[in-house]
Amino acid sequence: MSSSSPSAAPAGALAGLAGAVAPVDAAAAAAARARWDELAKPRGSLGRLEELGVTLAAIAGAAPPPVPERARLIVCAGDHGAVASGASAWPSEVTGAIAATICAGRAGASALARAVGCEVTVLDVGVASDLPAHPLLRSARVRPGTADLTKGPAMRREEAEAAVRAGLEAATDAAADADVLVTGDMGIGNTTAAACLVATFTGRPADEVTGPGAGADPEQLAHKVALVAGALALHRPGPADPLGALAAVGGLEHAALVGVILGGAAARRPVILDGVNAVAAALVATTLCPASLGYLIAGHRSPEPGATHGLAHLGLAPLLEMGMRLGEGTGALLALPLLRAAARALAEMATLAEAAGG
Amino acid sequence: MSSSSPSAAPAGALAGLAGAVAPVDAAAAAAARARWDELAKPRGSLGRLEELGVTLAAIAGAAPPPVPERARLIVCAGDHGAVASGASAWPSEVTGAIAATICAGRAGASALARAVGCEVTVLDVGVASDLPAHPLLRSARVRPGTADLTKGPAMRREEAEAAVRAGLEAATDAAADADVLVTGDMGIGNTTAAACLVATFTGRPADEVTGPGAGADPEQLAHKVALVAGALALHRPGPADPLGALAAVGGLEHAALVGVILGGAAARRPVILDGVNAVAAALVATTLCPASLGYLIAGHRSPEPGATHGLAHLGLAPLLEMGMRLGEGTGALLALPLLRAAARALAEMATLAEAAGG
Repeated sequence: MSSSSPSAAPAGALAGLAGAVAPVDAAAAAAARARWDELAKPRGSLGRLEELGVTLAAIAGAAPPPVPERARLIVCAGDHGAVASGASAWPSEVTGAIAATICAGRAGASALARAVGCEVTVLDVGVASDLPAHPLLRSARVRPGTADLTKGPAMRREEAEAAVRAGLEAATDAAADADVLVTGDMGIGNTTAAACLVATFTGRPADEVTGPGAGADPEQLAHKVALVAGALALHRPGPADPLGALAAVGGLEHAALVGVILGGAAARRPVILDGVNAVAAALVATTLCPASLGYLIAGHRSPEPGATHGLAHLGLAPLLEMGMRLGEGTGALLALPLLRAAARALAEMATLAEAAGG
Repeated sequence: MSSSSPSAAPAGALAGLAGAVAPVDAAAAAAARARWDELAKPRGSLGRLEELGVTLAAIAGAAPPPVPERARLIVCAGDHGAVASGASAWPSEVTGAIAATICAGRAGASALARAVGCEVTVLDVGVASDLPAHPLLRSARVRPGTADLTKGPAMRREEAEAAVRAGLEAATDAAADADVLVTGDMGIGNTTAAACLVATFTGRPADEVTGPGAGADPEQLAHKVALVAGALALHRPGPADPLGALAAVGGLEHAALVGVILGGAAARRPVILDGVNAVAAALVATTLCPASLGYLIAGHRSPEPGATHGLAHLGLAPLLEMGMRLGEGTGALLALPLLRAAARALAEMATLAEAAGG
């Protein structure tokens, strides 16, 4: 495919993004570490909750960090042309039906968002079917689903950029009244595109990064692996041109998730990654803008093999391992209480000296 | 030590307990499984959250189960005579200081309980130092700490029974306005007693079930292993007499935790287990009353090796693995949002038919 820029720098309207994301604050991280060691507990005894508190301090630039009470899940939704080539056992119509179900408050993400205290936005950047207007729906449709990535580029570079911008604007708006952003996705066929992206950025072959997604049987999985391998051979996407790779083999919702990550990082908000689709987007985002990595928290480990390979490439350890593969942000939502717990413990616990004294 | 009953049946005042715990409801569990498969998601895609929903349905006898909004943590506190023999690097005075810190709302458990929405009770069944009266403190001190289990029985059988009763009464009172109970413990030296109990009920040797607890170095750990091995050789506790084993090598707070488990189960409440001390108590409780096992949810995996061996013996898989070893119920508290999420998803999600229809 054509490329307006041969370098790793983001092209066009995204060019300024890398500079808009400040590195996380190493001094605040060090102060948080020191504070954990003063608190009334054996050193290190809160385990990974301590690491999480350090990460939150680095992001906020404050130790203790503020408690991330106000949260917003942004479910990026789009359809996939590769469904016509058998990328999923489910029809594309399900994308719109579930997006509407999320808006109606009756999807998995809806129930879990209520359980943990999180607002929800559905961001339509590419659903093929029409979605009725709804207060939770943010419409920014770039095109009604991608083209079939097994036959040609999924979208034009300008379309990928537009979807990134839509995610970025949604995240920027969300950050006005949310302390933390949660990533979600809805798109029948999107684990095929995610596998292509993970292969692109980790260098792993198709059969190592492709999984059953929403429930492919072994025969369907073998077909998915062949689709991914074929797409990689056709487009030869590489990490030197992340936006080009995104346009060639990604989804519109992956592009929007890239924007959510960059927008969240620019606003100094923690961004909780959900499953393989969020991880695929994180690989793109952190290649475009390495400083954004410091704002990412891996909410859970999806059973999709691409999630594990992608997280390892990013150097992120997931907080939860519940075998969840629903998408919509469900796994990331369950990690949200852990962030609040880490921040509260760091802020509210007595020191050893205080506890001994009284 | 003397034994008033050679059989596995609980003695004296505890004799009626096994009968007071009803088995969990297999029909409700089956109904919950069937409901998960009807909901708008790929089958099984909520992973372990689905199992958790099934467990909650079985406990409540209803599918979907009620959402366990109202929760109470009961931190059972006691001191240990074995500290005089080097069971811990920390002095016994810390038990009372931290119990007071929990009451003051400034301990690790306090911060985490606020983060997840959980009330807190501190149940003193055997703290050696005096605790000032406090609204969160429930005083039921059986004796001011156990005797040194490395030299003789930790307590008399009647004392163990009294501590079990204290926990049971606290759980029964808590169940009046809590949908779920969370176990916690505070007691310098208690991982040594817990290791003795885990060895007793799993049949594993001292060196496999004994860990560093609050932070023993390798030399101190070797000493702890020797203490545990010595206590096992001295008392020869066995699963045929669970109350006798509890009295010989347990702690007063372990006995109280046995009562919390049995009281919670009798009231048909889920009981979330924290770390190795709760697991040790669960081994005693489920031997006294096998039906109580169905009410137990393993909140997390403590790094203490006895926790892993005990959970495997119970057949329980922990929800979280955060490397937490603070005690006080901190690990169990973090699992609470998962219970609420599972119940909400089961109750509030649309079916596939509903989602497809609109």
